[in-house]
Amino acid sequence: MPSTPDNNRDRSVGIVEPQRRTLFSPPDALVLESGERLTPVTVQYETYGELSSDADNAILICHALSGDAHAAGRHSPEDEKPGWWDSMIGPGKAFDTSRYFVICSNILGGCSGTTGPDSIDPNTNEPYGTNFPVITVRDMVLCQKALIDQLGIASLLAVAGGSMGGMQALEWAVSFPDKVRSVIPIATTYRMSAQGIALNEVGRQAIFADANWQNGRYEPGEGPSTGLALARMIAHISYLSAESMHRKFGRDLRYRDHYTYNFEQEFQVESYLHYQGSRFTERFDANTYLYITKAMDYFDLTTGFSSLRESMQRAVAKFLLISFTSDWLFPPREMKELANALRSNGADVTYIDINSEYGHDSFLIEDVPQTKLIAPFLEYLYWEE
Amino acid sequence: MPSTPDNNRDRSVGIVEPQRRTLFSPPDALVLESGERLTPVTVQYETYGELSSDADNAILICHALSGDAHAAGRHSPEDEKPGWWDSMIGPGKAFDTSRYFVICSNILGGCSGTTGPDSIDPNTNEPYGTNFPVITVRDMVLCQKALIDQLGIASLLAVAGGSMGGMQALEWAVSFPDKVRSVIPIATTYRMSAQGIALNEVGRQAIFADANWQNGRYEPGEGPSTGLALARMIAHISYLSAESMHRKFGRDLRYRDHYTYNFEQEFQVESYLHYQGSRFTERFDANTYLYITKAMDYFDLTTGFSSLRESMQRAVAKFLLISFTSDWLFPPREMKELANALRSNGADVTYIDINSEYGHDSFLIEDVPQTKLIAPFLEYLYWEE
Repeated sequence: MPSTPDNNRDRSVGIVEPQRRTLFSPPDALVLESGERLTPVTVQYETYGELSSDADNAILICHALSGDAHAAGRHSPEDEKPGWWDSMIGPGKAFDTSRYFVICSNILGGCSGTTGPDSIDPNTNEPYGTNFPVITVRDMVLCQKALIDQLGIASLLAVAGGSMGGMQALEWAVSFPDKVRSVIPIATTYRMSAQGIALNEVGRQAIFADANWQNGRYEPGEGPSTGLALARMIAHISYLSAESMHRKFGRDLRYRDHYTYNFEQEFQVESYLHYQGSRFTERFDANTYLYITKAMDYFDLTTGFSSLRESMQRAVAKFLLISFTSDWLFPPREMKELANALRSNGADVTYIDINSEYGHDSFLIEDVPQTKLIAPFLEYLYWEE
Repeated sequence: MPSTPDNNRDRSVGIVEPQRRTLFSPPDALVLESGERLTPVTVQYETYGELSSDADNAILICHALSGDAHAAGRHSPEDEKPGWWDSMIGPGKAFDTSRYFVICSNILGGCSGTTGPDSIDPNTNEPYGTNFPVITVRDMVLCQKALIDQLGIASLLAVAGGSMGGMQALEWAVSFPDKVRSVIPIATTYRMSAQGIALNEVGRQAIFADANWQNGRYEPGEGPSTGLALARMIAHISYLSAESMHRKFGRDLRYRDHYTYNFEQEFQVESYLHYQGSRFTERFDANTYLYITKAMDYFDLTTGFSSLRESMQRAVAKFLLISFTSDWLFPPREMKELANALRSNGADVTYIDINSEYGHDSFLIEDVPQTKLIAPFLEYLYWEE
C-alpha cells in the first residue's frame, strides 16, 4: 500500500488505508498453544514505506493491549488523531519510512479488524464472545508470521514494540530466530509479574461483575461499559508514575477551591480517570479485554526451561532493550535480568534504561530519546550486509 | 479496663473487653469540618495497661482504613487471632503496657462500634447510610480528643499509627499541639497523593457499580459485596510491593503445572486476592469504605498554608517518623519532605526509612525494627520529666 504524501503534515506517512488478509482458511487452521484450532483468521494491517526489491527492509511493529494496526499517519485528511506511534514512524523518524517498509497488524484476538471475540464465528454466525479460544502471545506471533509469509518477506530487519508489543518482539526472537535480524522490546518483560497478573485479574473481575457482561453474550453497543471503564481506570493508574500523576494533577480540584464533602468527582485526577475509562469503552470490546489481558498473564519465556538464560539460547537476533526509570508495571530490573541473561549467552545486546518520569506510558511519549537509540541501531543493521 | 493476664501467651495484654462511651450528646454536637453537626457520637475503644495516678503515661494508637479498636490481646480465650497490632502492644513490647496506658478507639465513621454510616440515625431510626455526613481525618481526631478528655488525660505521651493512623497522629500534632508530647507517624504522608486518590476513587466506583449498593440503602448482610471485594483487591495490590508479591506468589499455579486456558483463578496470586477481597466483605461495611477513603483523600496538612513548612509551624511535639523503602502507596520521599520541613522549623525530629520488602503493609509486619526505634524513643520521653 503506497502511502499518499500529506503535504500539510511534515514527516508524516500521510493518508493510509487499512488492509485485510484472510489466513488459515479451511482446511488449514491456526493451531493455538492451547491445542484449539481457529479457522479462518482475518488480519487487519497497515504498511508504511516501500518494500525493497529483495524484501530486506521490512520492520514489524507490534502493538500493546489497547493499540491496533493504525500505528502511523491518518485515515483521512479530516482525521483528528494520527496512529498511536506516529511520533516514531515516518520519513526521517525512528522507523524511517523513506528507507524501511513498516508493517503493523492488529493482534490475534483484537477488536480492530483481526479475528477476535467480537468477530463472527463461522460455525454459529454469531459473535464468538467467550466461545473464542484463549490465546497467548505466541499465538499472536504465529498469526503475524503467516502475514509476513504472505507478504513475501523471508526475514524481518526488526521487530519492535512496547509493553505487550515488546512481549511479541521477544517471542519472535525465540520462536522464529531465523526470521528476525533484530528485536527492539521496549517497556516490557520476559514474563508477566505477580503484580501485573493481579492488576489484570482485578480488571477482568470488574468486567465479570457488570450485569451487562451476560457471560460475554452482550449485543454490540450494549456491553459491560461500567466494568470495562473500571478495568481501564485501574490499568491507567499502572501506566503512569506517581510522580507524573502528581505533576499533572496534584491535588487540584475540578471546579472550586474548596471541598464539596460529597462523593462527586472533585479532584482533577478523578475526572481524568473517568474520562479515560469512558472514552475507552467507545472503542474497545470488553470480551477482547479479557482475552488479551489473559494472554499477557500467560506470557513467560522461561516456561519449560530451567532458567531465563537457557530459554534465551534459541535467540540469535541483535537486541536493543529499552526500559524507563519510572515504569513500575514493567520495571527496569526485569529488563536488566533479561539483558544479563542474553549477555551471558554471548548475544549482541544493547540495553538502555531511559530516565523518564512518565512511567509505563513513556514508550508512547518519549520519542526523542527512543529515536536517538533506534534510528542508528537500525541504520547500522541496514548497511551491515 | 484492667486486662486479665493470659498465661498461655507470653507478653500478651491478655483478654480484653471493648468499651464504649457516648460523646457529644444533645444539646452538644460534634461540629465537623464540613460544617455539619453530628449528635450523639458513640466511640468504641480498648485500653491496655494502667493509667498512672497523674495520667502522664497515656499513648493513643490510631488505626488504618480497615482496622478497629481491637489493637492487642484477645476478646476470649478461644479467640484465634489477636488484635491488629498485637506484635507491638504488650508487656515488654514497643508500646510497653507494663509502663504505658495504651488506648485505641475505632475511628469516627468506622463500622466497629463507633458512630458511622452503618449506625442508626436517631432522627430516622434507620442506618445513616449515605445520609451520614462526609468526615475528615480532623473530625476523627476531634472525636479522639473528646474521648481522651473524658478519660481524664490532659496530655498524651504519644500518638502513633500507620497509614491513615499516621495521618491522625500528624493531625494531632498540628490541631492539639499542647496535648501531645510526641507523635509517631508510620508509613504515611502529610497529604494524600494523586495516585492515592486515584486508587481510592476506583475502589469507590467499584462499590457504586454494584447493583446491591442501592445508593447506600442496602439491608445489613445484603450489601454490595462484589464491589467491596473488588475495592479491597485493588487496595490490597497497593499494600504490597512488586517484590513481595513476586517472592510470595511468583507465577505459581493453583492446582496444576499447566495452564487451563480459561478465565478461572489459576495463578496463586489471583486466588490470594480473591480470598482477601471476600474475607473483607465479611467484616467491613461498604458505605464505611466510601466515607473513610474519602476522608483519606481530603487529608492535606498544607491546606490553607503557603508551604508544608508553614503548616507544620503549629507543631511542638517530638517526632519519630518511620517509612519503609518498598512502600509505594506512601513513599519514603514524602516522609522525607515532611522531615525536612519539620527540621527547617527547628522541630525535634527523628526520621528512619526502614529497609523492608513488604511494601505499605510493612508497618503491620516489621515489628522488630519498629520496636527498636519506638521503645527507646518512648522510654527517653517517659523519663525526661
